[in-house]
Amino acid sequence: MSVAEFSGDGKDIVVSTRIRLARNLKNYPFATKLSAKQAREMIAAIYEALQKNPALKSVLSFIKLSDLDDLTIQSFVEQHLISPEFAKSTAERSLVLSNDRHISIMINEEDHIRLQVMGTGLCLNKCLDEAVKLDLLLDETLMLAFNEELGYLTHCPTNLGTGLRASVMLHLPMLTRCNEITKMIADAGKIGIAVRGIYGEGSVARSELYQISNQFTLGFSEQETVERLKGITDQIISQEQILRKAALAQARDEFEDRVYRSAATLQNARIMSASEAENLLSDLRLGISCGLINGIDYDSLNSMLYDIGPANIAVKNGSTLPPKERDKYRAEYLRNSLRSKLKE
Amino acid sequence: MSVAEFSGDGKDIVVSTRIRLARNLKNYPFATKLSAKQAREMIAAIYEALQKNPALKSVLSFIKLSDLDDLTIQSFVEQHLISPEFAKSTAERSLVLSNDRHISIMINEEDHIRLQVMGTGLCLNKCLDEAVKLDLLLDETLMLAFNEELGYLTHCPTNLGTGLRASVMLHLPMLTRCNEITKMIADAGKIGIAVRGIYGEGSVARSELYQISNQFTLGFSEQETVERLKGITDQIISQEQILRKAALAQARDEFEDRVYRSAATLQNARIMSASEAENLLSDLRLGISCGLINGIDYDSLNSMLYDIGPANIAVKNGSTLPPKERDKYRAEYLRNSLRSKLKE
Repeated sequence: MSVAEFSGDGKDIVVSTRIRLARNLKNYPFATKLSAKQAREMIAAIYEALQKNPALKSVLSFIKLSDLDDLTIQSFVEQHLISPEFAKSTAERSLVLSNDRHISIMINEEDHIRLQVMGTGLCLNKCLDEAVKLDLLLDETLMLAFNEELGYLTHCPTNLGTGLRASVMLHLPMLTRCNEITKMIADAGKIGIAVRGIYGEGSVARSELYQISNQFTLGFSEQETVERLKGITDQIISQEQILRKAALAQARDEFEDRVYRSAATLQNARIMSASEAENLLSDLRLGISCGLINGIDYDSLNSMLYDIGPANIAVKNGSTLPPKERDKYRAEYLRNSLRSKLKE
Repeated sequence: MSVAEFSGDGKDIVVSTRIRLARNLKNYPFATKLSAKQAREMIAAIYEALQKNPALKSVLSFIKLSDLDDLTIQSFVEQHLISPEFAKSTAERSLVLSNDRHISIMINEEDHIRLQVMGTGLCLNKCLDEAVKLDLLLDETLMLAFNEELGYLTHCPTNLGTGLRASVMLHLPMLTRCNEITKMIADAGKIGIAVRGIYGEGSVARSELYQISNQFTLGFSEQETVERLKGITDQIISQEQILRKAALAQARDEFEDRVYRSAATLQNARIMSASEAENLLSDLRLGISCGLINGIDYDSLNSMLYDIGPANIAVKNGSTLPPKERDKYRAEYLRNSLRSKLKE
């Protein structure tokens, strides 16, 4: 289990893949009704189940959320390792993370268990296989809430059935700029696929990144869910690729102008807001995909996108910074990270 | 007579100095009433007068405007060697230019003779001395229209008297950005000093450059005119310097951010309009003056400001370019000119 395995193709458009399974324990009430004592018992039971696999045990960290400071918690949200709701909750919570962070298990979020497997690029099947292995391991020891008719029982009925949310994060600058996103979202919705900005429901697209995921968990097997998502993802990728080619063919100068200006600003600004940095990094990503920008790979760019978040900056800096100092820190971080790497 | 002599101090704020004398010949009607034959005679007489000084003769070019193509004429306007009105006129016109271009004499503009001496930086007295020498040379041979009471007679009464317009071109980014320009223009107006954008009356300030000149030509000697202009110029320079120091002390990060972003854009854009280039070059000039930008001197920057004009680009390119191609050419010219020179 190394992070290298959790890497797929199509990184010019597919930033990352995520498989999430929602599970609950039969012999405990749902999270909202759970006492602190029950929560602690349940956490211990889940720890024990996971530790039965010695190989897995050696790469997992078991973290009580109350042991973490707020900044670290917020930085985990920015890295998509935990949900904003989980970060805010005052219940007894625990987090299990693999060393390479491709596995993240939230204990006592909305459901007792929210198991996530993440990879870079398009790797839905790899992530699903890994999630299924972890699910089986939990199932060996724990009594998971399951109903023959409804499948896995979850706190929210929208997760009933497989409890599976499969998602890919796509970089869709040309679909965004050509105003094709609204139509794409509507079309995807008709076949049960949700398209959202990168921080989940209700959020706007940042850095021209979109999360594409299944809406339905009932009536489809895990494999079917992943196949359907893969199908629509391939279609969206094709559309984005067509628009990129068209832009390069029809307006190459304007395209290059924007990419090179953005790369220059990232390497030279002294003050930069998170939202400006996200927009410029989107241009940089597009520039890499079209061969205009060299010297930096997508994985470094992905890390950068997390590193520029306010909480991640505070963690790196050792303490919270006032907004202006944070914008200076961000500009300096980007200058230092990119200047040595980028070559035209 | 070399261009090096026509260079003064204060180049961090004073881009250039110009002395202009308006003169008319007594024995010819004013330009609007002049026949083509008379104009040709007059041009010949002026040529002859100037050629009496052998040292001067060897550095002057005598150019019939009808021998020049429109692009070259327009490029001379962009370089401030001739006025837009002179370029547009259909009369018999001639231009006398020194090789180093610090002397420009328009023959048959609004007045028979518009004699200009230009220098970089603040060098009002040097330019005036040179203009007076040229005027004396003309006066030796020609019958200049002069009245004991009104002084030199000119086509427009606003030039009656000395016929002198002394002007300095100042770079006033901080006065502009702090909205102090309107007050400055009003204050200067009260004491007979006009402040205009760089292409003369009615034009808006480009590149945050302003032309400061005397409004009155009656009631003051040439020396008094220049002294008054020098006095107000020194005051404006002080105001601009105070604001620059204040900006660096109070908002250094924002100041540096803007300068470095502009320098980066100038070195990396692929398409650039003249007006964007002028704005960015203004930041670059400010950056040089504050020691943030090194490797390029003010004189190179001044040339660049002329070189990016549409007509100058067409002349360099060998033919007129459509607007988009011109914007590409401009971006490439700036990239090439600056990249090799700039160091942080």
